[in-house]
Amino acid sequence: MSQEPHRVVIVGAGFGGLECALRLKGAPVEITLVDRRNHHLFQPLLYQVATASLATSEIAWPIRYLLRDRSDVTTLFANVNGVDAANKRVLLEDGDTLGYDTLVLATGVRHAYFGHDEWEPFAPGLKTLEDATTLRRRILVAFERAERESDPERRAALLTFVIIGAGPTGVELAGTIAELARDTLPPDFRNIDTHKTRVVLIEAGPRVLAGFPDDLSAYAQRSLEEVGVEVILNQPVTECSADGVVFGGKPLQARTLIWAAGVRASRAAEWLQAPHDRAGRLQVQPDLTVPDHPDIFAIGDTVSIADAKGNPVPGIAPAAKQQGRYVAAAIKARLAGQTTAPFRYSHAGSLAQIGKRKAVIDFGTIKLRGTIAWWIWGIAHIYFLIGLRNRLSVAISWLWIHARDQRAARLITQGSSKVAR
Amino acid sequence: MSQEPHRVVIVGAGFGGLECALRLKGAPVEITLVDRRNHHLFQPLLYQVATASLATSEIAWPIRYLLRDRSDVTTLFANVNGVDAANKRVLLEDGDTLGYDTLVLATGVRHAYFGHDEWEPFAPGLKTLEDATTLRRRILVAFERAERESDPERRAALLTFVIIGAGPTGVELAGTIAELARDTLPPDFRNIDTHKTRVVLIEAGPRVLAGFPDDLSAYAQRSLEEVGVEVILNQPVTECSADGVVFGGKPLQARTLIWAAGVRASRAAEWLQAPHDRAGRLQVQPDLTVPDHPDIFAIGDTVSIADAKGNPVPGIAPAAKQQGRYVAAAIKARLAGQTTAPFRYSHAGSLAQIGKRKAVIDFGTIKLRGTIAWWIWGIAHIYFLIGLRNRLSVAISWLWIHARDQRAARLITQGSSKVAR
Repeated sequence: MSQEPHRVVIVGAGFGGLECALRLKGAPVEITLVDRRNHHLFQPLLYQVATASLATSEIAWPIRYLLRDRSDVTTLFANVNGVDAANKRVLLEDGDTLGYDTLVLATGVRHAYFGHDEWEPFAPGLKTLEDATTLRRRILVAFERAERESDPERRAALLTFVIIGAGPTGVELAGTIAELARDTLPPDFRNIDTHKTRVVLIEAGPRVLAGFPDDLSAYAQRSLEEVGVEVILNQPVTECSADGVVFGGKPLQARTLIWAAGVRASRAAEWLQAPHDRAGRLQVQPDLTVPDHPDIFAIGDTVSIADAKGNPVPGIAPAAKQQGRYVAAAIKARLAGQTTAPFRYSHAGSLAQIGKRKAVIDFGTIKLRGTIAWWIWGIAHIYFLIGLRNRLSVAISWLWIHARDQRAARLITQGSSKVAR
Repeated sequence: MSQEPHRVVIVGAGFGGLECALRLKGAPVEITLVDRRNHHLFQPLLYQVATASLATSEIAWPIRYLLRDRSDVTTLFANVNGVDAANKRVLLEDGDTLGYDTLVLATGVRHAYFGHDEWEPFAPGLKTLEDATTLRRRILVAFERAERESDPERRAALLTFVIIGAGPTGVELAGTIAELARDTLPPDFRNIDTHKTRVVLIEAGPRVLAGFPDDLSAYAQRSLEEVGVEVILNQPVTECSADGVVFGGKPLQARTLIWAAGVRASRAAEWLQAPHDRAGRLQVQPDLTVPDHPDIFAIGDTVSIADAKGNPVPGIAPAAKQQGRYVAAAIKARLAGQTTAPFRYSHAGSLAQIGKRKAVIDFGTIKLRGTIAWWIWGIAHIYFLIGLRNRLSVAISWLWIHARDQRAARLITQGSSKVAR
């Protein structure tokens, strides 16, 4: 009875880490949830903040708030920079350490520039709220500068937006920027015709939305082209600079580049000196523990694992949540002296929005596209948003956009025109 | 018929400048509205962004959007850094110039530290959206750091918030921070008791809300003290530093200081080498023109002018709007060859919120306080918000706060714990 409670430390409060903490409710454990942000982020809608459709507070919640009723959970706002597995301690950047009995690593991914980190300042990616407000500023400032630019060539470069990578994020960004230019902005400007905006989506592979079936990819491409997006396939970008991009040996002048082409796992594998794939993702056991570290679980995007058919489990929110749930159950089982079956991923479906009133959905046997898919996409996303208020607020924002073609969050913050390069 | 249209340049899209542009509708003029921000800001609610009650997009709108239907108005996102009155040109920072026939200066105010500009990094003020998100971050990070601080003295300093200046902004900030600590945050933290937060409001003068009648000041002070704010009167602050403040010869350890004590007019008087008062405000003629510059009007906070009784016109939104409206009418009259009567300020009333369900209102003959005043305050502010969507969104945010004691916008952005000093 006087035994010390079992200490679980969870690093990262994304979909996987948060789900694990939530599902450990009632277990005889003491939980510490560490994140370097104070908020949980609903990443699937981050592109809507970047394109001025939603406000930051509509897709993010203080982690403490989400766990306010859980006295067994301590939330820590801190940077982790290592794990001392021999002594079972998590090392924090400020010198503190946290002892654990079981550790759950849910540290996610960051952008990867495939050995070209020097491209990052020119082609920022989209992973955090700050990334989203930075992109929003760059996109809006580009139109502002175009409005004042008299040189036609420079003006054209300001009105050219290049998105590198045609996965769901790239497709969603391209579609939304095209609509911003076509539907929202035209009445606001006097010197430029924002219909002339070029949105160029460049993909190294042979089709957009490579994770979807061929026919949905083709449909997505057609839909993007209908709203004016130029889709360029089979062309890896070979240079990003302040002037634009180079692909296929030719330069394209563009002042706004967005990187949606690749990610790299966080440093969890480095911390543990554990086996990982080329993208830095930990190769875990079937029970999601790290090899030789039975007390360390790893989940979500920072992990490389295959489903029952041998296909890689995708880096999407439902997969991370399933893993968080599995680990919570595994910890409970262990403490009860039971064993657990290996993790099995169950794929519910893939969704991607393409512009304002279209989406594609792949449920495996059922494939949907067009307006009906868009409604399901919207309802599913509103449903999964945490917190009644945000659901309502996002629903109102979307209705507003669709009824009036207006976007409420078109704010350039973090400085005046001075700041924008 | 082939005459060039009369060119009006308005510098500043705050309440005065925007109102002037809106009221010039239909006049035979060509308007250019220049602002260094892309958004018009509803400053009276800025403290609610700083205290995590509202999102930035709920109180700000793209200037272009507000004037999208006005083909006679060109909106320019640019920094003005001078006026060449002899040649009738506005000088932009990037080297461009704008010719005018009539110029309207509505450039507002910034913080003033009374000769102690070195205090600014320690005691930031609240004038822009960036100021508000910076303050929000500092306030939220202070609680986060207190949660992890084991030294009682340092923890107490982290949980001490000092607001310098007890005008409406200071009073509203103090009341809202006290409520954040008492009503919103307690269930979120494990190591600290946020009820023990000290909110100290320091005022150099003899009472809070000096612009209000004595009895409302006394009521506001009592109400603040009821929610736990320590009100200190007749004490000018003599030092601000990373450790806290000094007043009355004694230091008070505090990690979060907020400056609400004074403002200084923008550089418009410098640009024109025109007469101004000690706070840098232009001394204008009864028709709001600048002496010796009949083609230059100046309005709003950047101007010093008296009402019919000889009292200074207050630096509030309704006063700026009345001046904007007056100048629009004056420009129209001049173009029609008519003269205009001098500007007359009509004071509708003064309002200030004190914490969640209380306010004071001074309508001159009628004085209101308490819950009824708070309802009028809320309805008036929602009414004056531009744009149906924001009204709805703010109303929902407020209902949510009052029903659940939750604040949606509690996001620490612009960096992780690293960034916070």
